[in-house]
Parts: sequence; structure tokens; C-alpha cells
Amino acid sequence: MHPRARHAQTSIFTHMSLLAARHGAVNLGQGFPSNPPPAFLLDAARRAVGTVDQYTPPLGLPALREALGADLNVDPADVIVTSGATEGLLTLALSLLVPTRDGQPAELVVFEPVYDVYVPQAELAGARAVPVPLHLDPEEGWSLDLAAVRAAITPRTQALLVNTPHNPTGLVFSWAELTELVALAREHDLWLISDEVYDELYASERPTSLRELAPERTFTVGSAGKRLEVTGWRVGWILCPPGLGGGLSLAGGLANVRQVTSFCSPAPLQAAVAEALPLARSQGYYAALRADYAARRALLSSGLRSLGAQVHEPQGTYFLTAQHPTWTAEGLVESGAVAVIPGEAFYVTSPPPAGLLRFAFCKSRAELEQALERLARLSNF
Amino acid sequence: MHPRARHAQTSIFTHMSLLAARHGAVNLGQGFPSNPPPAFLLDAARRAVGTVDQYTPPLGLPALREALGADLNVDPADVIVTSGATEGLLTLALSLLVPTRDGQPAELVVFEPVYDVYVPQAELAGARAVPVPLHLDPEEGWSLDLAAVRAAITPRTQALLVNTPHNPTGLVFSWAELTELVALAREHDLWLISDEVYDELYASERPTSLRELAPERTFTVGSAGKRLEVTGWRVGWILCPPGLGGGLSLAGGLANVRQVTSFCSPAPLQAAVAEALPLARSQGYYAALRADYAARRALLSSGLRSLGAQVHEPQGTYFLTAQHPTWTAEGLVESGAVAVIPGEAFYVTSPPPAGLLRFAFCKSRAELEQALERLARLSNF
Ligand SMILES: Cc1ncc(COP(=O)(O)O)c(C=O)c1O
Ligand SMILES: Cc1ncc(COP(=O)(O)O)c(C=O)c1O
Repeated sequence: MHPRARHAQTSIFTHMSLLAARHGAVNLGQGFPSNPPPAFLLDAARRAVGTVDQYTPPLGLPALREALGADLNVDPADVIVTSGATEGLLTLALSLLVPTRDGQPAELVVFEPVYDVYVPQAELAGARAVPVPLHLDPEEGWSLDLAAVRAAITPRTQALLVNTPHNPTGLVFSWAELTELVALAREHDLWLISDEVYDELYASERPTSLRELAPERTFTVGSAGKRLEVTGWRVGWILCPPGLGGGLSLAGGLANVRQVTSFCSPAPLQAAVAEALPLARSQGYYAALRADYAARRALLSSGLRSLGAQVHEPQGTYFLTAQHPTWTAEGLVESGAVAVIPGEAFYVTSPPPAGLLRFAFCKSRAELEQALERLARLSNF
Repeated sequence: MHPRARHAQTSIFTHMSLLAARHGAVNLGQGFPSNPPPAFLLDAARRAVGTVDQYTPPLGLPALREALGADLNVDPADVIVTSGATEGLLTLALSLLVPTRDGQPAELVVFEPVYDVYVPQAELAGARAVPVPLHLDPEEGWSLDLAAVRAAITPRTQALLVNTPHNPTGLVFSWAELTELVALAREHDLWLISDEVYDELYASERPTSLRELAPERTFTVGSAGKRLEVTGWRVGWILCPPGLGGGLSLAGGLANVRQVTSFCSPAPLQAAVAEALPLARSQGYYAALRADYAARRALLSSGLRSLGAQVHEPQGTYFLTAQHPTWTAEGLVESGAVAVIPGEAFYVTSPPPAGLLRFAFCKSRAELEQALERLARLSNF
């Protein structure tokens, strides 16, 4: 088997979900929501089944590209629908990372802790992911180390992959930080890949979208799975830099790759998302979701603190990272308490901060309460 | 952009569907069915929406792997669910085609006329597709040229991609022919990739599945889209050679690649297919579909013959190839008559046989009749 097949490891997220089931632990590991998806989305899907069942164009169902264009304020011609953000990221890696002059692998700068698919996707593209550590201060939490980014750029660097809001830390890059990253990208002529799957899941202010600062070089990746709480539906998207004019577009080039990865995204689910996007906006769905997550985050975060964990408050996503002197992910799941993701899962080059764990709070209040009770019982031993 | 992105061309199938719409032509081009999918499948999907909406394991929903195992008589442990057969084929190309000793691209032998994704997928994997022509006799139709296969094998050949029933010709390889291909594969230690998406769409006898002849080296690719007439659902599969024992399996290695291409297949649609597979069998759905296609094939084929086309009767699939002295795919669509796929679309190295066109008969009787009427009118000018 090709070395690239060996490099990709069984997903820690899947692994932890299996362990959670085996040990009867509350699953705060894998990032899928426990609460039901919005009814207007489910209704739309039930209507689309039996109506929109055949191949769509590889670029996506026209109605969905229109809806995304309207929702995200971009030209629908620059939208490519993908089978989840995962396939969007793969398409970009395969298309944008080109052979270097010296025959060495192209380099893709990513931030560490890193979402686990970025590294094997770069390998599949014959390139190499170069992780730049985010700084962790025990009191102040996570922050961007711009000097480290600068130091990581080499003549082989071709793209910078930004993820904001960031999984697993919940860090949101500020307008000022993104502006500095853009300056670096312009100086070294790098593509910017912006993984914004958690764009609607922020704690206070709406995050800046990188596209606003550098439209000419930014590819934004998004996911209906995260926005509409249907992670299994596999509807995501890429927003490309605006068309080059004369009918030429980067979307066209990328679509050629995307159509040989999975040809098109699931047709009836694309139709349902197209119908749901304007409804989600007009019905204030995202704002309600954020309010709900704020309450669940507060519950988990204060609960963990009271058990002696150092919690690094997230500014976005439905995850939080915390450190605890005695907890380990293995210990917690094997005792049948809770499944969480160990820090190691997000570190490729350096060891993770001691005792770092990721907790997902996209779970029901009941699950969060039960998890905290079980952790409390463990602490009493 | 990476040369591999440029290599993949806008799908001729998508292109022809767009032209058909623009010119008001009957669309006998792209291979998606006009008739509604089976009600038991649609009902199952409507129930799964709202129930099975979150990530499934990358290997697939356990219920679907079980159902496929039962239907195809394989161990569910050797089944990987993919986002359509397209992603199954990509996963195999990325995993099985490894760097050669001399640094030249690995070679994948395919048959020409060739289904258009095989070639760019090999390129994405850093390999090269080597097309071997099928023989076309004006009277006898298509046949396998075993000597040509033998001649195409080099020390860099790593896999042989067989497609039976074959798109676009409808050719079904016989037990004897497959046995000879297996002997070649064993002699040169090649993987066999068997694209059997049309496994249930045959005209007379059930085609031999390559896996029966060479279980140790055959990866079979299938598609719910083709079997259950929902091409847009994106549920396909790979059957791997039986597990290597000791918990080791080829499925495990491939799953590592598959989880970074699109992570998992659409969850509610996987659940629906799992429910539908045993029903399709017990209700005689495939036999009824075959009978229906036999009637539509006869209608189209005799109609085309009466208009002076040389029709090469297919033994499987819902396509037929025909040659006509004056028709061209462009002319037919631009006159607003019918959209068909030109022979060129399936030829990479050599020119196609003169006047070769592919007609899809997975369309309604009304569409087939209308197409024939319009072609008759053209012939009268
Ligand atoms: C940062 C990040 N990007 C991408 C994804 C994958 O999104 P999708 O499910 O749409 O493929 C995830 C899922 O957890 C994620 O956390
Ligand atoms: C020979 C062949 N293989 C694979 C496919 C793709 O199947 P799927 O739609 O499941 O990706 C097709 C579709 O036309 C085909 O004809």
C-alpha cells in the first residue's frame, strides 16, 4: 500500500466514539451535536427525497450555490459545493500545492494544535504540512505567535491554512492578527486557505472572515454540517477568489478535481440546505444556537473549574480545552466516565501541553451534567 | 494550479446535460434515470432524515456494511462505504498505486473506450492510466483483445482496472475472459480493480464477478446510485480482499485514506440504502428493472437501426453504442434533437471508431420515443 495510506491514521475521533460506546462513557469526544437538527431543514430534506435524487453538476446544485452566494455575500459563480468541508480541504490541497523547483515537497503552514485531516491531506497531495505552534499561557490561554509563523515560511511554502474559530482551542483570530497574516501571505505570495466551518459558532463578536481582507488569494471552506447541526449530511463548500473575468475562474479549475473525488455532493441534502439557509437567517436560528451554546459552555466550563481543571475559555466552536493534573483521556473513558479527545491528537511535531484535553459541549444539558457528576465522583476517590 | 487540476477536464456528461437544457434536446447523454427511484427506498430515506444525521464511522454505517455483506456474500469487515463509486475508485488509486523503483509513474491498465474518471484519478495519485483498446468489429460488435492487454503490461504496471458490465459499450466479460485476465494478474502480481457498478443491469446471464475468481487480489467497486436509481445520493462501496487475519485488513488501510477524502458518506442515505438492499432482493426489484430496461433497449435499438445506425447490442448497463454515417453529437444536440455522448469522450490515446455515439436508455419511454421521432425528422432533411 502507498505510504500515504499508512500515514493517515484511524481517526482519533472515531476511535474515541467507539471506546465511549464500549465503556458506557458520556461522549464529549467527537464533535457531533446531540440535539436534533432544525425542523425546517429536516422537512426540506424529506421533500427533496424523491424529487432531487440524480447527479447534480459537480460545482453543486445551482439553487444551493445561489443560496450560499446570498448568505455569504459572494458571487455564486465562485462557490463550489463539496462533500463536507473535508472534501473541500482535500480539493484545495490537491489543486493548490504544486511541485517545487527543487523537487522537494511543497509546504503548507498550519497551526498546532491542528485539526487532524490537514496533515494526511497534504501528504496525499505530495506536499508537507508544517505546523506552527499556537502559544498557551496558563492564565491568558491561547494566542497567535506571529513570529513563529514568519519563521516557518520557506521558499517552498505555498499556502497558509488558517482555522478560525479554531478547533480545538476555540481561538478566534482578531482583525489585526488576520491583517498581519495577510501581509505575510502577500509578501511571500501564498494562498490563504481559511477553514471557517465554525463561522456561526462564536461566543461574543462575529469573527472576521479572511476573505474580507484578502479576496484575491483566499479560499474559504465552510460546512452545513456544523452550521445546521447535521455533521453526517456531507454538504460543505469552498468560496473561491473572485472570477478572473472572461469566463475564467479558479472555481472551474478546482471543479475539475472535485468531480473526480466524489463527482457531486448528495443531491437531496444539497436541495434541503439550499432551502434552509435563508430560513436559518430569517428565523434567527444561528443567534438562538449561539445563546444555547453559551449556556452549555458556561455549565461545562464552571463545572470543570470546580473540579480543579484549568479551562481555556473558547471564543468560538463548540469545544473547549482544559488541563487537569491527573486526568488522562484514556483514564477517563476506561473508567466509564467521559470520552474526551487527548491533546496528542492535535500535535504532530511537538508534545502537547501537559494534561491537555478537548471537551465538546455540542451535547445535551443532561449529558453535560452527567459527565460532570461522573468526573466529580472520580475526583472523590 | 497543479497540473493535475488542469488535466481533469470539465465532465463531458455535465457539459452535454447543460447543452441539452440549452437547446431543448432530449437528454440521452448523462447516465441518470428518468423514472422515479423505488418507493421503499424513498420511504426509508424520509424516516432516516431526523434520525441518522450525524457522522458515521468512515468505514460506513455498520447497518449498511452488514446489509452489503449479506447481499454480496462477503464479510462486512471487508466492506468500505464510499461517497459513490467515484470516491471508491479514487481511494483505490491513491492507496494501491505506489512509487516505482525507477521513479517513473506507476501504471494502471484500463480499457478503451474508458470511463472518463479513471484517467484523471490515476494522475491525482501520481500514476498513469494505460488504455488498452477493446476491439470493434462492425458486425460482431465489441470484444476483449487479450493480446493487447498482455502487451500493455510493463514492470511498472501495478493494477488492472476492469469494468464489467462496461460503460459505454455494454460489454460483459465472460467467465473465460476474466479467468485469462486473472492469470495475467497473478503472473505479474497485479491488483485487480473491478468496477461493477452495473452488476444488476445485465441483458441475459448474470455477469461473473471478478472477486469469485481472484478473491486474494480483487477490489470490487459498486454503487447504490446505479442499482437503486439514485445517482445523486452518493452511496457506493469497495469490497476488499478478505482480511489478512490477526485483525489486520486491507479495509483498515484504505479507510485511512477514505476518511480524509470526505470522512464518511451521507448518513441518512446510508441508512436508507441499508434498509432497501434486502427489500430490493426480496421484492424482485432488480429483475423487474432488468425487464423494463430490456423493453426500452429494444425500443431504442430497433428505432436507431431503422434510421440507418449500426447498433452494437449491449449485454449490460443502460447504455448502447451505435455508429451512424452522418450524425455527430454536436450536430444532434445543437439541432435541438437529442443529447448523446460522442465517442471521443471515451478515448484518450487513439481516435474513436468513426461516428461512434453513446445513447443512454435509462430514460422514460416517452423520452425515447420523442428522441427517435426527432432523429427521424432530421434524417428526412
Ligand atoms: C476545523 C474543522 N474543519 C473541518 C471539519 C470537517 O467538516 P465536515 O464535517 O464538513 O467535513 C471539522 C470537523 O470537525 C473541523 O473541526
Ligand atoms: C463505469 C462507471 N463507474 C463508476 C461510475 C460512478 O458511479 P457513482 O455515481 O456511484 O460515483 C459510473 C457512473 O456513470 C460508471 O459508469
